[in-house]
Amino acid sequence: MLNPTMSPRTKRKLLIIGGAEDHSDDCVILRRFVELAGDGDARILVVAAAAQRQADAGDRYRRLFRDLGAGRVSVVAIPCRGAAEDPSAAREAGAATGVFFTGGDQLRLTTLLGGTRLFAALQAAHQSGMVVAGTSAGAAAMSDTMIVEGDSDDAPKKCTVKMAPGMGFLAKVVVDQHFAQRGRIGRLLSAIAQNPSVLGLGLDEDTAVEIEPDQPLWVVGSRTATVVDGQTIAHTNTSQSKPEEALAITGVTLHVLPSGYGYHLDKREVALPDGRMP
Amino acid sequence: MLNPTMSPRTKRKLLIIGGAEDHSDDCVILRRFVELAGDGDARILVVAAAAQRQADAGDRYRRLFRDLGAGRVSVVAIPCRGAAEDPSAAREAGAATGVFFTGGDQLRLTTLLGGTRLFAALQAAHQSGMVVAGTSAGAAAMSDTMIVEGDSDDAPKKCTVKMAPGMGFLAKVVVDQHFAQRGRIGRLLSAIAQNPSVLGLGLDEDTAVEIEPDQPLWVVGSRTATVVDGQTIAHTNTSQSKPEEALAITGVTLHVLPSGYGYHLDKREVALPDGRMP
Repeated sequence: MLNPTMSPRTKRKLLIIGGAEDHSDDCVILRRFVELAGDGDARILVVAAAAQRQADAGDRYRRLFRDLGAGRVSVVAIPCRGAAEDPSAAREAGAATGVFFTGGDQLRLTTLLGGTRLFAALQAAHQSGMVVAGTSAGAAAMSDTMIVEGDSDDAPKKCTVKMAPGMGFLAKVVVDQHFAQRGRIGRLLSAIAQNPSVLGLGLDEDTAVEIEPDQPLWVVGSRTATVVDGQTIAHTNTSQSKPEEALAITGVTLHVLPSGYGYHLDKREVALPDGRMP
Repeated sequence: MLNPTMSPRTKRKLLIIGGAEDHSDDCVILRRFVELAGDGDARILVVAAAAQRQADAGDRYRRLFRDLGAGRVSVVAIPCRGAAEDPSAAREAGAATGVFFTGGDQLRLTTLLGGTRLFAALQAAHQSGMVVAGTSAGAAAMSDTMIVEGDSDDAPKKCTVKMAPGMGFLAKVVVDQHFAQRGRIGRLLSAIAQNPSVLGLGLDEDTAVEIEPDQPLWVVGSRTATVVDGQTIAHTNTSQSKPEEALAITGVTLHVLPSGYGYHLDKREVALPDGRMP
């Protein structure tokens, strides 16, 4: 049950960003995050655990969100798992209206945060309506299973992609980021061919999807989100092939969606900007 | 009508190569070309008009084809359109069992060769059974309409891709090359969205398709051919969008096919290695 006193702007929203979002012009995506978190009433927590230099990344986003009008922004430092067990960090999460996961290395993020008190507090806060946003590595880690690494600009191979358990804010989807910019269609195809019940979501740079339970996701930003739907796959040799062999994958359905377009994750249907189906 | 005295190996075959084919190990693709041209009986003509240094490119392939056992290999130099009007070049084409178009710039190839006596002789020879092969730019120029340039590693936009009339050996297909290696799915999607009656064929490096009229094409080489079928597109905003805007393209069908897999261009159906449909 959602908290009935909760603002309509904060219905367990996710904002998943393909990396390299605009920081200097209109800041459409980051501005949207601040808005979803409550603008002047926002209490934003920045988690920079994915970043190599957490303090730098945290400070950058603190300044950005303050400049965009967020009421309060704090950065939680997580140099080690112990820091994520600190009750004060969990209390901070409990009071937040939005959390923002920075870029960096998704495996550093999940190894530091996974299974900690802070992570449990963030999950609980999200259930009560806190917006969860992540960019680049922070986007990759949103789903149940995340892509950890894999060759870009290559044909799909079984060895192209390594996966690991993600933070699980989004079920049955595998997210890939910097998608067109790093030529990652091959590794996302390889990921979904391994289990077509999972949907592939490739996010270009400066492009995000906004997701709310039981609603279509909507695309925001300057480029596109690519939905890779493997449910229509007629044949793949993924289970029999050797790691270095090029894979066969036939009958994949692809949707390329720019800003204003939507997609029903459950129904696997595109929603046009006017709300109709194509 | 095919020439009834023609070898069964030379039934108006095309060999379209995604560039960077192996020149030093097994040379699977180039060896196949020499075989299709007749091995010891082959008379191969190398057209290096696409290359910036025609003599270098021509010499390289002459040596390769000789090393692979081709009976006779000659290189036709085309420094200007006048050279392609030379009756002796046309005679050479008329006697060839295979022509090979090197890489370089597809627009240089078509501007030098298009509409010349040599080109007419090559078309006539192909009708009588001469194998036509091309790599990289030589592959791009095979179809009716060819991609001349376009951003790689970017979301599909109308300005992403510039097209021009190609050599027309292959109808109703747009070929793109160095496909996964240069992240070119966006520009191929943009090309086929402009007219989904045309099929997109993205060829990875060291990968080729072998095509014979009324037969499925077959994939050869170490990586994959990607078929982008726009006939299933449910919606696109291509005609209304501005050049720099990210495009919407929904419901595209994609097949990723490694060596041994086939595809019926006319029926738009995959053929598995054993000949069955998936």
